[in-house]
Amino acid sequence: MNKSDVKHLLEAIKKNDITIEDAVKIIEDLPYKDLGFAKIDNARELRVGYPEVIYCEGKTVEQVKSIVQYMLTKENNILATRASEEMFLAVREICADAKYNSLGRTITVRKKEEILTESYIAIVSAGTSDLPIVEEAAETANILGNRVERVIDVGVAGIHRLFSKLDIIRGAKVVIVIAGMEGALASVVGGLVDKPVIAVPTSVGYGANFGGLSALLSMLNSCASGVSVVNIDNGFGAAYNASMINKL
Amino acid sequence: MNKSDVKHLLEAIKKNDITIEDAVKIIEDLPYKDLGFAKIDNARELRVGYPEVIYCEGKTVEQVKSIVQYMLTKENNILATRASEEMFLAVREICADAKYNSLGRTITVRKKEEILTESYIAIVSAGTSDLPIVEEAAETANILGNRVERVIDVGVAGIHRLFSKLDIIRGAKVVIVIAGMEGALASVVGGLVDKPVIAVPTSVGYGANFGGLSALLSMLNSCASGVSVVNIDNGFGAAYNASMINKL
Amino acid sequence: MNKSDVKHLLEAIKKNDITIEDAVKIIEDLPYKDLGFAKIDNARELRVGYPEVIYCEGKTVEQVKSIVQYMLTKENNILATRASEEMFLAVREICADAKYNSLGRTITVRKKEEILTESYIAIVSAGTSDLPIVEEAAETANILGNRVERVIDVGVAGIHRLFSKLDIIRGAKVVIVIAGMEGALASVVGGLVDKPVIAVPTSVGYGANFGGLSALLSMLNSCASGVSVVNIDNGFGAAYNASMINKL
Amino acid sequence: MNKSDVKHLLEAIKKNDITIEDAVKIIEDLPYKDLGFAKIDNARELRVGYPEVIYCEGKTVEQVKSIVQYMLTKENNILATRASEEMFLAVREICADAKYNSLGRTITVRKKEEILTESYIAIVSAGTSDLPIVEEAAETANILGNRVERVIDVGVAGIHRLFSKLDIIRGAKVVIVIAGMEGALASVVGGLVDKPVIAVPTSVGYGANFGGLSALLSMLNSCASGVSVVNIDNGFGAAYNASMINKL
Amino acid sequence: MNKSDVKHLLEAIKKNDITIEDAVKIIEDLPYKDLGFAKIDNARELRVGYPEVIYCEGKTVEQVKSIVQYMLTKENNILATRASEEMFLAVREICADAKYNSLGRTITVRKKEEILTESYIAIVSAGTSDLPIVEEAAETANILGNRVERVIDVGVAGIHRLFSKLDIIRGAKVVIVIAGMEGALASVVGGLVDKPVIAVPTSVGYGANFGGLSALLSMLNSCASGVSVVNIDNGFGAAYNASMINKL
Amino acid sequence: MNKSDVKHLLEAIKKNDITIEDAVKIIEDLPYKDLGFAKIDNARELRVGYPEVIYCEGKTVEQVKSIVQYMLTKENNILATRASEEMFLAVREICADAKYNSLGRTITVRKKEEILTESYIAIVSAGTSDLPIVEEAAETANILGNRVERVIDVGVAGIHRLFSKLDIIRGAKVVIVIAGMEGALASVVGGLVDKPVIAVPTSVGYGANFGGLSALLSMLNSCASGVSVVNIDNGFGAAYNASMINKL
Amino acid sequence: MNKSDVKHLLEAIKKNDITIEDAVKIIEDLPYKDLGFAKIDNARELRVGYPEVIYCEGKTVEQVKSIVQYMLTKENNILATRASEEMFLAVREICADAKYNSLGRTITVRKKEEILTESYIAIVSAGTSDLPIVEEAAETANILGNRVERVIDVGVAGIHRLFSKLDIIRGAKVVIVIAGMEGALASVVGGLVDKPVIAVPTSVGYGANFGGLSALLSMLNSCASGVSVVNIDNGFGAAYNASMINKL
Amino acid sequence: MNKSDVKHLLEAIKKNDITIEDAVKIIEDLPYKDLGFAKIDNARELRVGYPEVIYCEGKTVEQVKSIVQYMLTKENNILATRASEEMFLAVREICADAKYNSLGRTITVRKKEEILTESYIAIVSAGTSDLPIVEEAAETANILGNRVERVIDVGVAGIHRLFSKLDIIRGAKVVIVIAGMEGALASVVGGLVDKPVIAVPTSVGYGANFGGLSALLSMLNSCASGVSVVNIDNGFGAAYNASMINKL
Repeated sequence: MNKSDVKHLLEAIKKNDITIEDAVKIIEDLPYKDLGFAKIDNARELRVGYPEVIYCEGKTVEQVKSIVQYMLTKENNILATRASEEMFLAVREICADAKYNSLGRTITVRKKEEILTESYIAIVSAGTSDLPIVEEAAETANILGNRVERVIDVGVAGIHRLFSKLDIIRGAKVVIVIAGMEGALASVVGGLVDKPVIAVPTSVGYGANFGGLSALLSMLNSCASGVSVVNIDNGFGAAYNASMINKL
Repeated sequence: MNKSDVKHLLEAIKKNDITIEDAVKIIEDLPYKDLGFAKIDNARELRVGYPEVIYCEGKTVEQVKSIVQYMLTKENNILATRASEEMFLAVREICADAKYNSLGRTITVRKKEEILTESYIAIVSAGTSDLPIVEEAAETANILGNRVERVIDVGVAGIHRLFSKLDIIRGAKVVIVIAGMEGALASVVGGLVDKPVIAVPTSVGYGANFGGLSALLSMLNSCASGVSVVNIDNGFGAAYNASMINKL
Repeated sequence: MNKSDVKHLLEAIKKNDITIEDAVKIIEDLPYKDLGFAKIDNARELRVGYPEVIYCEGKTVEQVKSIVQYMLTKENNILATRASEEMFLAVREICADAKYNSLGRTITVRKKEEILTESYIAIVSAGTSDLPIVEEAAETANILGNRVERVIDVGVAGIHRLFSKLDIIRGAKVVIVIAGMEGALASVVGGLVDKPVIAVPTSVGYGANFGGLSALLSMLNSCASGVSVVNIDNGFGAAYNASMINKL
Repeated sequence: MNKSDVKHLLEAIKKNDITIEDAVKIIEDLPYKDLGFAKIDNARELRVGYPEVIYCEGKTVEQVKSIVQYMLTKENNILATRASEEMFLAVREICADAKYNSLGRTITVRKKEEILTESYIAIVSAGTSDLPIVEEAAETANILGNRVERVIDVGVAGIHRLFSKLDIIRGAKVVIVIAGMEGALASVVGGLVDKPVIAVPTSVGYGANFGGLSALLSMLNSCASGVSVVNIDNGFGAAYNASMINKL
Repeated sequence: MNKSDVKHLLEAIKKNDITIEDAVKIIEDLPYKDLGFAKIDNARELRVGYPEVIYCEGKTVEQVKSIVQYMLTKENNILATRASEEMFLAVREICADAKYNSLGRTITVRKKEEILTESYIAIVSAGTSDLPIVEEAAETANILGNRVERVIDVGVAGIHRLFSKLDIIRGAKVVIVIAGMEGALASVVGGLVDKPVIAVPTSVGYGANFGGLSALLSMLNSCASGVSVVNIDNGFGAAYNASMINKL
Repeated sequence: MNKSDVKHLLEAIKKNDITIEDAVKIIEDLPYKDLGFAKIDNARELRVGYPEVIYCEGKTVEQVKSIVQYMLTKENNILATRASEEMFLAVREICADAKYNSLGRTITVRKKEEILTESYIAIVSAGTSDLPIVEEAAETANILGNRVERVIDVGVAGIHRLFSKLDIIRGAKVVIVIAGMEGALASVVGGLVDKPVIAVPTSVGYGANFGGLSALLSMLNSCASGVSVVNIDNGFGAAYNASMINKL
Repeated sequence: MNKSDVKHLLEAIKKNDITIEDAVKIIEDLPYKDLGFAKIDNARELRVGYPEVIYCEGKTVEQVKSIVQYMLTKENNILATRASEEMFLAVREICADAKYNSLGRTITVRKKEEILTESYIAIVSAGTSDLPIVEEAAETANILGNRVERVIDVGVAGIHRLFSKLDIIRGAKVVIVIAGMEGALASVVGGLVDKPVIAVPTSVGYGANFGGLSALLSMLNSCASGVSVVNIDNGFGAAYNASMINKL
Repeated sequence: MNKSDVKHLLEAIKKNDITIEDAVKIIEDLPYKDLGFAKIDNARELRVGYPEVIYCEGKTVEQVKSIVQYMLTKENNILATRASEEMFLAVREICADAKYNSLGRTITVRKKEEILTESYIAIVSAGTSDLPIVEEAAETANILGNRVERVIDVGVAGIHRLFSKLDIIRGAKVVIVIAGMEGALASVVGGLVDKPVIAVPTSVGYGANFGGLSALLSMLNSCASGVSVVNIDNGFGAAYNASMINKL
């Protein structure tokens, strides 16, 4: 409920178009649906421009299924991230159209086919082991209505692979860079493009990698100026952010 | 030197419009000016859309002065960050127009007055102690040609202060949130706007703050989806990034 | 054995009402029951006002069962935390009344039905994944004789959900806030109520969450003043503490 | 502005007792005073029961003085923490009654003499080096209207010192334990009293103390159940929290 | 081979009692037996007073068996730590006298029955969950020829349990204190006895325990002076060290 | 493609020996083979002197098999590290000559038998548990064409074992030291030889070892000057580096 | 007051040799002297065998002086550690005999000349930069009545220096090893002697030394079995501990 | 003293060419000179091929001067690192030829002019702020007899600067890469050359740089294979190592 909504409500109260009791109820009922174990944020699209997404980690299969079931009563597309195959099978029982990306671990349901943006998001990744995060990001960007171009396996150990794809990267409106180990790719790309770069450190690597910490610190300390960072392995967050920028 | 430049050069070689020796020299001379202790990146504006910025930390007063002196021979506006007052005084000797923001510790020289963008960047901060980073960000955003709106001292301990300024924040094209301590402001703002949020953790706080680590981790783990993060106290990086987005 | 007990004992010695040998024995026998692998703290209720609780982590099923068996000979209610289902089944063999909360992983045995307090403890949580800790806290608070109100899934990403429940939260005598990820909920609630807030960071989240460290640091650095913190995932400790306050 | 205030306002609108424009202004003007570099939270006493406190770290002398100047126009007592002597001298220029506790680094101004509570807060500390935090906590508790009893230098290396003071500690309504090094005092006290214990780790110690981290972790992992923790060296936060509990 | 051995060897060379080639061989053959994948340190008893111990972690069942097989050809008692049950079964095939302590995960073979020391080592532990480390320490101390007294489950949350056993603890020549969580027991015991205390932090606990780090830091920062520390869960190391002291 | 290659290409363009379109294609096609999920770096041998190695961690069995299948079409020897037995079995289906080192977890295929270097690499390790890393390093060094001498189980706790092998170690052209726990072996060897030492910390150990961190820090802080360090458990990296040095 | 003291007191009460009031007073007065800001632990010598030591860090010059002044009224020798020169000058005003070790930063006052033990403590250190800790340890050991032998600058980078002093080290009853950087000396010495080794990590070093953390972890993970560890730079603690052992 | 030296000595003993007492003295006197506070390692050049270097951090001016004074009696060149200007002035009093590099903080004395190697060490650095480490490395490499080529300010944010210098880098026998912030330069260079790369992380940067930790982890996790790492800011160690390799 934005500012002008509030103004209308106040005016309606004044004009006796609505009782105070009803006004209180509207404010109470509007913003979310209470499922007992969760409160679905209905007002979210109004407020931040995107429908709520189901983050499955730490939820039971039954909880995920219930949330999807409620969401199916609405008009929005549905995205669930960090979903196990078992969750997908449960969801498919109530929704034959649901799709599963087993690498990216996403469930998607398309209620309306959005026209994709003309400008695109480039998703650039360092190694084969980063592919699950690439897929999570790509599925998220897609369902939010963005065209996506993948540029994979172009880590800096063989930097000519990156240079051969520079045109695709430079053509994007916003760039997501996904890398584990030392995460140097973010800095190198950041120094080569004039577009915002969103860096995703991944937990790929071993030893003093510390679950992605090395790539995270690397990206936060990037000597290239246009780089911002999201959490380790957070392909969803990067894509969500990139979508906001791509649609400006 | 972008792709079409290279193509023209190759064609010139073919047509004998240029000797191979000269072509080699062009490629060697074009990209930067070597000052001995530093290589000024002349090609940077072509490549990433912005002139190079002087990061003063770890440089001597003389080095900063020399770099400015060289830059004054070009047409670009000049920005130096993390500059001490002593550095400013040295710069002013060779450039009477230089300005110093003592809170934000920036030196700026305006060679051409850019018309500011119509859309603006909102810079939102939690407490009075975050002001130095606010100023660094604002000076950076300004010299890069962006209109800026400051919303300061609206930390979540008195959340009504934030709500009273929501219109300004929601009117921005991109939002920078600057907060120390627990950095909760980034998540709260991220949940209230439909624009990209760039979070800057600050080293404000004490005890288990660990020089900004608590705010940094907080922001990386934000439950709000549209939040990306730059390094601790990196007001410059946030503004640079925001400028890229604001100008899309 | 408090100060006046000691005085009585000394007077009894003086009056020859008791031999020195017996006096020594009393002091030795009073405080605990030795089960060989554990010493049950009988004096605990006298000393700190609550019966001992069985923390099951790191104990074998047999050890848990033996401790419960001994406790059943006393009049107190019994609480076991971090109990596996296997432990519960073993306990039920010797006590048909035992109850298991599978989400909160607690075993409870009620030997006497306490009248609950009139004032209540509000347990506020950020997301669905925090529910196990909510349940551990609620079971603990209940068996210690407190009325409890749950306010769940009100994380700051959709802050209107929290505001719609402010009355319940403000009506409590003490508030427990349970949140993972960036733990911002503790600061926001702390800024809105005039009651002590006990914050429980949870290990919910991923990446740079580091097993709850991000929420822990966040809560310790809260900019709201009335917030104190217990260990990560320690719903029991928070409820125990809240019970002490609620019963003042 | 609590719920009934809002109701009255809505009713006034309906009865035409107030115009919508005026109602908007009330809501906008009520909550804080904007000093330019800071927003004084006027509504805070209504909302969380205590006036705002000035945290001086990271503020300039001039800023602290301005905030005090504004606050002197109100009826509330004033407390500034982490204040330098220079700040105190600046404040005394505009307020002859201001008092400075040089060990605890607090400035206090008493506009009204509150009657202290009958119940008291016990402040227990481990060593001489913890005294600055003891003083910060005691000054805070006092100006918030609480009776305080100090029990200092009773660290566990000579545990009989602690036992000799148990009566004072057990007589309190709430106990603050302040300790550096290994912070064991919190666990020992927590095991001996039936009152809530708020533990304050201090940065006292050396080597693997890591600025108070050892005491912080120790207290968070306390085997005694009624212990909650505030930030390292945060005597103010502990006292604020204890005051809330003491006044229940 | 100590100094006087070398002297004798040199004299023998001089007197032609031994050829240089033979002398070289002696020096080469004396110190260890090479099993291919391991070098058994035969000289160890001469050098540091104790036979080598088999640390099983990271070794295969076959490797452990082979080392025991070789050792059985010597006169020394055998101790293997961190041994799985599978390893024990393999060892028993070649040595019917081998004994397994399943809690402490030790294999012992007694080739000669040592007379135990009169003075004893007290092993004091905080909770039931610390028992595996207690057993590892006790088995080690025993096979090295020391009398041992266990004082278990006397953590500081119920400090009277500790005081009731002070005589046993004070009667020891050296004290081992084993505790997880906040490890406060080491400081309390260290403040009560006039004997060296060896502290063993355990990984018992949860949340901000970080695998024993909290207890480790606690013990290193002990305010009691006679406390030294070994690695987390290193019951063997503590007992080995205590044995050295006990036998002085 | 090195500098002179580029020169030839430019000259060919000038002489019309090649069209610009073809020149572009050459540059585009030369450097790697795109397998869809990976880009095989064909130019790598030209550029850094060694064929690409397959790092199997995070790759699926199918991906590893596909990469090997492609590589079999080339003349180079093949090395895959961190390979599971399942991966080996899949590879053997398409290449009967493939060999598996189950301790070192490497797959090797020899397409041409290289003559080993005369100078050798000494691989020195501290304990039996370090053997898997020893094997990874040895397999890597071998397939890169180096003679290898292993000196195992010579940790500093029995330093005479090390001294008895000093001749072998000192005879090497470069030394790899592999050690877990406190990693002291690297410093001791570094102080005894006049050759470069490459230290490999291993994750062997427990407690405050923190997955190899203790050995890593130890080796980075070595008081011996000729020691450099690779990542924890990175036997491959050490051998690769040593091979470069050995072949100088 | 040990057990038999208590027994005598109880018997005295019974025989009316003492009134209960007086008995209470004895127990209350015996254990410490309250100086207001500190409680001097008089019972400490009875309890743990050594007089209390003044740890000066975090104390004011006046506080140190006052504590010394009180202690001068007793018969014990006085030791103050971490004392600044300013503190020493203040102490010398009231005690002309006070001595200052400026390297070790200790103040000592000898009230009675103890006969030193025949057995000695060897203090072994790695480098010149470790000398301050060597001196703190030596002064402590001396005033506690122990003979001391220093073996300095024998770090493992030139291990022959250590071997040339092995006789002195092996002749000690207990060995203190003081080392910074990677702390390898503790393991090497631990593998060469049959006496308890107390390791002191120092903060000497740079970079990834992290204020002594590398040496601390190294020593805790020592592969040699008889090594226990005290806090970083804690020469006092090591000497105190060693004194206990040396006097057994 | 190497193996053949020992053999000669043994033969001399046998032939009565030398008494046993004298032989003992030789072994005792040969290896180092004892200055009281330090033991100069005379045998070092024999053992590891280079004279000892003076590491000045933590040494007093007088100590540095004394060590130099002793060294001047020998024929070797002298290098002191981390030397303050005050130390240099003290050294110059006794040695007019001493030279000071104020940026690199080294003192050098050349007793013999070595002929530099033909092959060279390339020292590549990312930014101006890394220059002090560049200088420390270059001075070290020079005095050890190596030709050096500096390639400075070629960080990856403007990667074309690096490519323009590739020929110099590729022409080296061994490459040192010095970089702070995210340290990506090491990976990029490592992927472009076929020579060993020694990476030096520097403490340049701010925020989540943590004193060089980000660059350190980055370099340890480098995706390029031929990279090994030395301690943060350890230009000396890198050059020492590089010199060993360059002289193979």
